[in-house]
Amino acid sequence: MKTHTVGVIMNGVTGRMGTNQHLVRSVLAIRRQGGVRVGADLAIVPEPILVGRNADKLHELCARHGVEKCSTDLDNVLGDPAYPVYFDALSTNLRVACVRKAIAAGKHVYCEKPTATSTDEALLLYREAAAAGVKHGVVQDKLWLPGLVKLKSLLDAGFFGRILAVRGEFGYWVFDGFRQTCQRPSWNYRKEEGGSLMLDMFCHWRYVIDNLFGPIGSLVARGSIDVPRRVDERGREFDCTADDSAYGIFALDDGVTIQFNSSWCTRVRRDDLLVLQVDGTEGSAVAGLRECHVQHDSFTPKPVWDPDVEQPINFYANWEKMPNNRAFDNAFKVQWELFLAHVALDAPFRWNLLEGAKGVQLAELGLQSWRERRWVDVPPLA
Amino acid sequence: MKTHTVGVIMNGVTGRMGTNQHLVRSVLAIRRQGGVRVGADLAIVPEPILVGRNADKLHELCARHGVEKCSTDLDNVLGDPAYPVYFDALSTNLRVACVRKAIAAGKHVYCEKPTATSTDEALLLYREAAAAGVKHGVVQDKLWLPGLVKLKSLLDAGFFGRILAVRGEFGYWVFDGFRQTCQRPSWNYRKEEGGSLMLDMFCHWRYVIDNLFGPIGSLVARGSIDVPRRVDERGREFDCTADDSAYGIFALDDGVTIQFNSSWCTRVRRDDLLVLQVDGTEGSAVAGLRECHVQHDSFTPKPVWDPDVEQPINFYANWEKMPNNRAFDNAFKVQWELFLAHVALDAPFRWNLLEGAKGVQLAELGLQSWRERRWVDVPPLA
Amino acid sequence: MKTHTVGVIMNGVTGRMGTNQHLVRSVLAIRRQGGVRVGADLAIVPEPILVGRNADKLHELCARHGVEKCSTDLDNVLGDPAYPVYFDALSTNLRVACVRKAIAAGKHVYCEKPTATSTDEALLLYREAAAAGVKHGVVQDKLWLPGLVKLKSLLDAGFFGRILAVRGEFGYWVFDGFRQTCQRPSWNYRKEEGGSLMLDMFCHWRYVIDNLFGPIGSLVARGSIDVPRRVDERGREFDCTADDSAYGIFALDDGVTIQFNSSWCTRVRRDDLLVLQVDGTEGSAVAGLRECHVQHDSFTPKPVWDPDVEQPINFYANWEKMPNNRAFDNAFKVQWELFLAHVALDAPFRWNLLEGAKGVQLAELGLQSWRERRWVDVPPLA
Amino acid sequence: MKTHTVGVIMNGVTGRMGTNQHLVRSVLAIRRQGGVRVGADLAIVPEPILVGRNADKLHELCARHGVEKCSTDLDNVLGDPAYPVYFDALSTNLRVACVRKAIAAGKHVYCEKPTATSTDEALLLYREAAAAGVKHGVVQDKLWLPGLVKLKSLLDAGFFGRILAVRGEFGYWVFDGFRQTCQRPSWNYRKEEGGSLMLDMFCHWRYVIDNLFGPIGSLVARGSIDVPRRVDERGREFDCTADDSAYGIFALDDGVTIQFNSSWCTRVRRDDLLVLQVDGTEGSAVAGLRECHVQHDSFTPKPVWDPDVEQPINFYANWEKMPNNRAFDNAFKVQWELFLAHVALDAPFRWNLLEGAKGVQLAELGLQSWRERRWVDVPPLA
Repeated sequence: MKTHTVGVIMNGVTGRMGTNQHLVRSVLAIRRQGGVRVGADLAIVPEPILVGRNADKLHELCARHGVEKCSTDLDNVLGDPAYPVYFDALSTNLRVACVRKAIAAGKHVYCEKPTATSTDEALLLYREAAAAGVKHGVVQDKLWLPGLVKLKSLLDAGFFGRILAVRGEFGYWVFDGFRQTCQRPSWNYRKEEGGSLMLDMFCHWRYVIDNLFGPIGSLVARGSIDVPRRVDERGREFDCTADDSAYGIFALDDGVTIQFNSSWCTRVRRDDLLVLQVDGTEGSAVAGLRECHVQHDSFTPKPVWDPDVEQPINFYANWEKMPNNRAFDNAFKVQWELFLAHVALDAPFRWNLLEGAKGVQLAELGLQSWRERRWVDVPPLA
Repeated sequence: MKTHTVGVIMNGVTGRMGTNQHLVRSVLAIRRQGGVRVGADLAIVPEPILVGRNADKLHELCARHGVEKCSTDLDNVLGDPAYPVYFDALSTNLRVACVRKAIAAGKHVYCEKPTATSTDEALLLYREAAAAGVKHGVVQDKLWLPGLVKLKSLLDAGFFGRILAVRGEFGYWVFDGFRQTCQRPSWNYRKEEGGSLMLDMFCHWRYVIDNLFGPIGSLVARGSIDVPRRVDERGREFDCTADDSAYGIFALDDGVTIQFNSSWCTRVRRDDLLVLQVDGTEGSAVAGLRECHVQHDSFTPKPVWDPDVEQPINFYANWEKMPNNRAFDNAFKVQWELFLAHVALDAPFRWNLLEGAKGVQLAELGLQSWRERRWVDVPPLA
Repeated sequence: MKTHTVGVIMNGVTGRMGTNQHLVRSVLAIRRQGGVRVGADLAIVPEPILVGRNADKLHELCARHGVEKCSTDLDNVLGDPAYPVYFDALSTNLRVACVRKAIAAGKHVYCEKPTATSTDEALLLYREAAAAGVKHGVVQDKLWLPGLVKLKSLLDAGFFGRILAVRGEFGYWVFDGFRQTCQRPSWNYRKEEGGSLMLDMFCHWRYVIDNLFGPIGSLVARGSIDVPRRVDERGREFDCTADDSAYGIFALDDGVTIQFNSSWCTRVRRDDLLVLQVDGTEGSAVAGLRECHVQHDSFTPKPVWDPDVEQPINFYANWEKMPNNRAFDNAFKVQWELFLAHVALDAPFRWNLLEGAKGVQLAELGLQSWRERRWVDVPPLA
Repeated sequence: MKTHTVGVIMNGVTGRMGTNQHLVRSVLAIRRQGGVRVGADLAIVPEPILVGRNADKLHELCARHGVEKCSTDLDNVLGDPAYPVYFDALSTNLRVACVRKAIAAGKHVYCEKPTATSTDEALLLYREAAAAGVKHGVVQDKLWLPGLVKLKSLLDAGFFGRILAVRGEFGYWVFDGFRQTCQRPSWNYRKEEGGSLMLDMFCHWRYVIDNLFGPIGSLVARGSIDVPRRVDERGREFDCTADDSAYGIFALDDGVTIQFNSSWCTRVRRDDLLVLQVDGTEGSAVAGLRECHVQHDSFTPKPVWDPDVEQPINFYANWEKMPNNRAFDNAFKVQWELFLAHVALDAPFRWNLLEGAKGVQLAELGLQSWRERRWVDVPPLA
């Protein structure tokens, strides 16, 4: 087995998501397993260098996880040919400048979403990367959630017949911090710091919908600040300025309607924190993060409206849970492996900066629809 | 115990709903129990005469249920002072003319919804009834469904704290008639015969929302013909011209968002055919037709987003089913009893023709929003 | 991260409770975790020296748990400025003299309950500590039991509406040593050695009631020696001279009644060894040591007295178990951390020697009520 | 089989308890089964005549249940030698006068509890009956509840060894009528109409304790009006003037302590509406209305206090439910059969007017203890 080492600059992975998902469970996990196998004889091994502004934090992170190198001097590291890949998990408002530098330095770039704070900037990144001839990718982790992978397999198999409609529900109860501490970072609830549930989730829903169900033609959206006051990590009260619930109705090009709500102010009575119900002529499915239940037309009950009697049908009963016929790896890691193979061997990888720009676009259009109180069309990008 | 007999003209009760809910389970059930008790010593007993166009059907219905009188001559019956109440369950396009005749004849009128096919006509009925000084009411049965009564008791008790958002889901899978017979009448799917799920359900959602959550300020709606071809009662294929799914987002005057979908093309994976979830600062509830589950803030779980592990929380577990601390009567019958007491004793009854017109208005505005692809405001009626 | 070391004299921790709860699970556990975090950059690390009369036992304890220092010469250690904190877990009759010495030596004192064998002496300790300007605290561990923390959160959130009544049950079956060995120390059952369930538990109930429900106005109490003869640790029979069951009815200043029984002669058929039921206008809760079940008014069943039929209601069913939305640390350790922060940084700490004296007072008044067969009032201490 | 008919005057059985328990489920049920079998060849058949003030109600009751005779003229009926037995279920304040008349008329008397509103009057009834040489009895139905019969069988079998202590809990949540209708009569909550939970229940607890555990030496009691305002049967608000919760500690002559609480303001988390726990040296039992669970010393778990870990013992698990090795008849009917056999054949019957007076006495002493805030002794009656 030959190994091919690929140096990866990891910028901004001292946060919870960056550390857990990208560093520990993706890059380091790939190293632990001996790299990404590509073909019978070759494994690609990522070699990370951590970059950030706080040297103490970086050293502590390195020590804790056995990473050898770190630096606070991004420009210097970008100049080092030992690192052909640049990964960016900075907060969104800092991302564009750094990614542009990396592209300019000839690095292949992989980055978190949203790729930018505006569609124009997001497109700019795409165009510069394309012009520079570097490879590029954007994190679209939800595509590799086991539940969505199972749903995709149903779609590929034609399980649904013709798709009629899709309904998505995302969210859970995030405590406001008064009685119980809040389980999310406080900046999520401050627009001025990049918070906004619509901004956050519409980037996700764009690639989920595009990849599973097809192109979106138009949408109407509405957001709301349901909980106007919260307590932050240090126990201080603050005013919430960013929407914590977001409603969208998406009309696909082929006419299918997708209704999607997202909320941090809802108590969950459904299968999972994210649930997608797909109804088709031949059957339906309800996918969560890890599980997926199906009801084929052949075992669909026939309810009759009669509220005088107790409902004789248990509506959870006629659904079959799909088995785990294969192991599911961490969703972030799966995409990292695909990107590394793309970089090293030119394997196909379609989740690039153009796709990332589409996510920013959908969020932007959602905010516009909310503001203008009307449906807005989704123009093609590029 | 004294009894006071009230003659009731029942027009158009040969259909399934009319026969089952209004004749058998309401009027005849009230007779069987000895009338509506009002005060310690008095019972009001309705005395029905059935009116319709098909004498055979009427006689058969009378025979089957032990009703003594029927007639095919509405004008004649309206002239009979023995019948001070006129009830109308005709198809909507026939209703206005008959109700107007009844009002002109000085009858108290009670009728099914939608009261008319346009807001203007619905308002006309209200104004004529008010001018004539007769009493009037419109069927709003869902208000007395046990599940919604339980939900109302939570609202009255302040269980929710401040209400944050409401989500409604209605519908079930109505077979298209090809493989399995369709369990609804085929006219539901033909616009030219009054079909339209939005028209049908928005009339209901108007009074449900008004009575439970407060006045609606604006809405955006979209309908769809998901299943374009069905097989009717006689086995003939036909083209569906009426929407069989309808999506609405309602913004209440106080800013609360209510998202409501209705569909005859969805396979049900929830508690019941109709489900209303209410989220509030202090607790949430999910009400179905008969049951209502609550989750108070004190036993709300705190989920953390971590799709790498199997979800440790069962999201159906921390919900408590409200007990049946009292018996619940048929929802239609409850409203009939209230209307009869209103007629006989002037007991309060707020579900009148003006309220009925509001339902028609919401359906009309929903269709307009769909057509014009924008939010529309709900102007006050009067 | 800077660390600030605080020397702690631990007197009398060779017993089971002293070793397990105070040394191992509190002080040493705090050391293992790197100290008590106070603010972003500082951790307070306790440095124990064990004091006792039996040098062998002390050395063995040090060796077993990796403690470096011990001494049999209390006076000498009290003279050492390296140890600003004195902790006392001696048997009650030895406590007062030692704590007074520690106060005189200018130490901050923290001690087990009961702080003294009489209210007068307990108050003396408080007054001397206050006059000396040292910081002081008394162990009130039950306040940090997860079940009681959950109950407190309900009280703070106003879950109960107005509180109507409280019932407490404590105890379990302590074998008498004849057929099975006794699972408690034999001195518990000898008055002359400080035994008495009322003495022991009323000290606890005082702070539990004060902190959760408010000030006690008066009480009536009765104790009993239910099992008059037991077998001790060495297999010798002895006469029990101390009460092993104690009944109290407490009337709060605001009129609420709290009925509390404690017994070492009862077989447990309830949720836990200690159970507190709180009934309020809006809901009830039953808290044990770790769990807490709630029943809100909205899902309270409506029983009807009809002993002819089997009870149709399962009275354990309509209760919801509160989730563990956060991790719960050892109750003793939590209070140790608060006391150390109080010593080092003047953080608020209200569980002091005055509060400890109140516990002794309640036990004393309980014994008086039992003797005089009447209700006694609880005068304010100061 | 010979039958011996005994005429029974039933006065005041138009109320719920009187009709259901005494008339239908006792006297008429005994008639339906062919009388009370006494010996191999004889059956005693009660022949009721209903007496009351409202002729309409009496006739309706007779018609509904096939009773032949009724009368509004008590004096006249008392003069009829065909009726040797007088039964009284009037409200308490009317009872004494009527029972005295019946005694004066030479009738055997059987009556509901409380037999009078004061101990003196209750004793007077006893003395007059004794002087007149008539037979007499008082309803003490709870003694024949299946759960208490099972408990009695354990006591008789010596299951408990020496009894150590007893704890009783009675009650349930009675809604106040604001949100949900109240499930008890409103007079229960008005002292001026005879309401008082202490008055009601202490009459019961007297015979329960006397018969199961032995004579009461002294007691301390406290009552409370927990819910001060309720809504009555006709929807009118009223002030509650009678205690709705009552706490008692009873010391038996042999030193055993019995703690008993009763409340209409508690949400039930225990086996049943009434629960009696008996702890003895050899075992314990928890009896409800119909079931009884036992824990023998041999399968008593040995708990250790360690709140750091989740409780490893399920405290509901080591209890065995006693089987229904025989059928249990209605408790009221069983006592009726014993009284009829007593009247007809002089069979022993110890639940007489003296025992009834003891119940009144305990209630009176309870109220005195509450008022005077002290233990009171229970003097012998005679």
